[in-house]
Amino acid sequence: MVHADASNFAANITKEEAYQQVLDQAEGLFYEQRNWVCNLSNCAALLWHAFKSLPAPSNQVNWAGFYTLNHPSSTELILGPFQGKVACQTIAFGRGVCGAAASTKTTQLVPDVDAFPGHIACDGDSKSEIVVPIVVDDKVVAIIDVDCAELNGFDEVDQVWLEKLAGLVGRSCDWP
Amino acid sequence: MVHADASNFAANITKEEAYQQVLDQAEGLFYEQRNWVCNLSNCAALLWHAFKSLPAPSNQVNWAGFYTLNHPSSTELILGPFQGKVACQTIAFGRGVCGAAASTKTTQLVPDVDAFPGHIACDGDSKSEIVVPIVVDDKVVAIIDVDCAELNGFDEVDQVWLEKLAGLVGRSCDWP
Repeated sequence: MVHADASNFAANITKEEAYQQVLDQAEGLFYEQRNWVCNLSNCAALLWHAFKSLPAPSNQVNWAGFYTLNHPSSTELILGPFQGKVACQTIAFGRGVCGAAASTKTTQLVPDVDAFPGHIACDGDSKSEIVVPIVVDDKVVAIIDVDCAELNGFDEVDQVWLEKLAGLVGRSCDWP
Repeated sequence: MVHADASNFAANITKEEAYQQVLDQAEGLFYEQRNWVCNLSNCAALLWHAFKSLPAPSNQVNWAGFYTLNHPSSTELILGPFQGKVACQTIAFGRGVCGAAASTKTTQLVPDVDAFPGHIACDGDSKSEIVVPIVVDDKVVAIIDVDCAELNGFDEVDQVWLEKLAGLVGRSCDWP
């Protein structure tokens, strides 16, 4: 199988099936490869193409990727690999949806970003967002961030599977 | 201006105008930000959306991104930030189009990848490719790689502008 096929998703699969393929393919791609930039880059591609294969609102996802800890700072995130439009470079812990996930180490499931205190508008098209922290040895090393151009773009299914993915990514990479 | 607007390209601009916007926006995004992962991630987004705004064959680009030197190896590339489908993780210098650009430190403009000796098919849809080395202090630190799903997807205009971009990226980042 050529690598690109990992991000080809069949039509008419459920969201759970799409996420299962993301996890299976990610696990395969991470086998004997622990470089975090390489792995997050391929993982963003998997997520993006999974969302695009699903019906609305999932196919209205307009950004999918990662922020990582901005060493030597322990309270700032910096942009990592993603798919979508140009994004904000750095985000302080506690600021906006990404910063809240990083500072609280808990998933932020936000049906309407404009109602979220301190939301950072990297893209005015984004209407809803889910951010899942990647925690290793009780420290946030990165976050998964997905934006949707529709309100209520994400639900508990997204949360459960993205948290599984965060666990896999966290233990599969050597973090700086 | 929100960050995403950097990757919004007007309709009916020329390829030269699109590349000029990529360079201008990249220079702005790199201002006071030398993190290579952050900068390559945003740069891949700029390139992808530039190509998508243009007529064929440019809008048939199906992969745009970077490979970097896979430290501590000095003869292997590893996948960096990109936009498109899942890609090969590592490429030896000298192998395929990317490896040729890295080992020779010269741009590879390939109208038909199937005619290129040792071409690595990460995606069977890719028909043509351009790879531009990013050289700093006479060493290859990374390459820009763009694939197109049409034959003859790139020409000397792409080469000239991607080489300008490679120069800007090379001097704007702190490389590992």
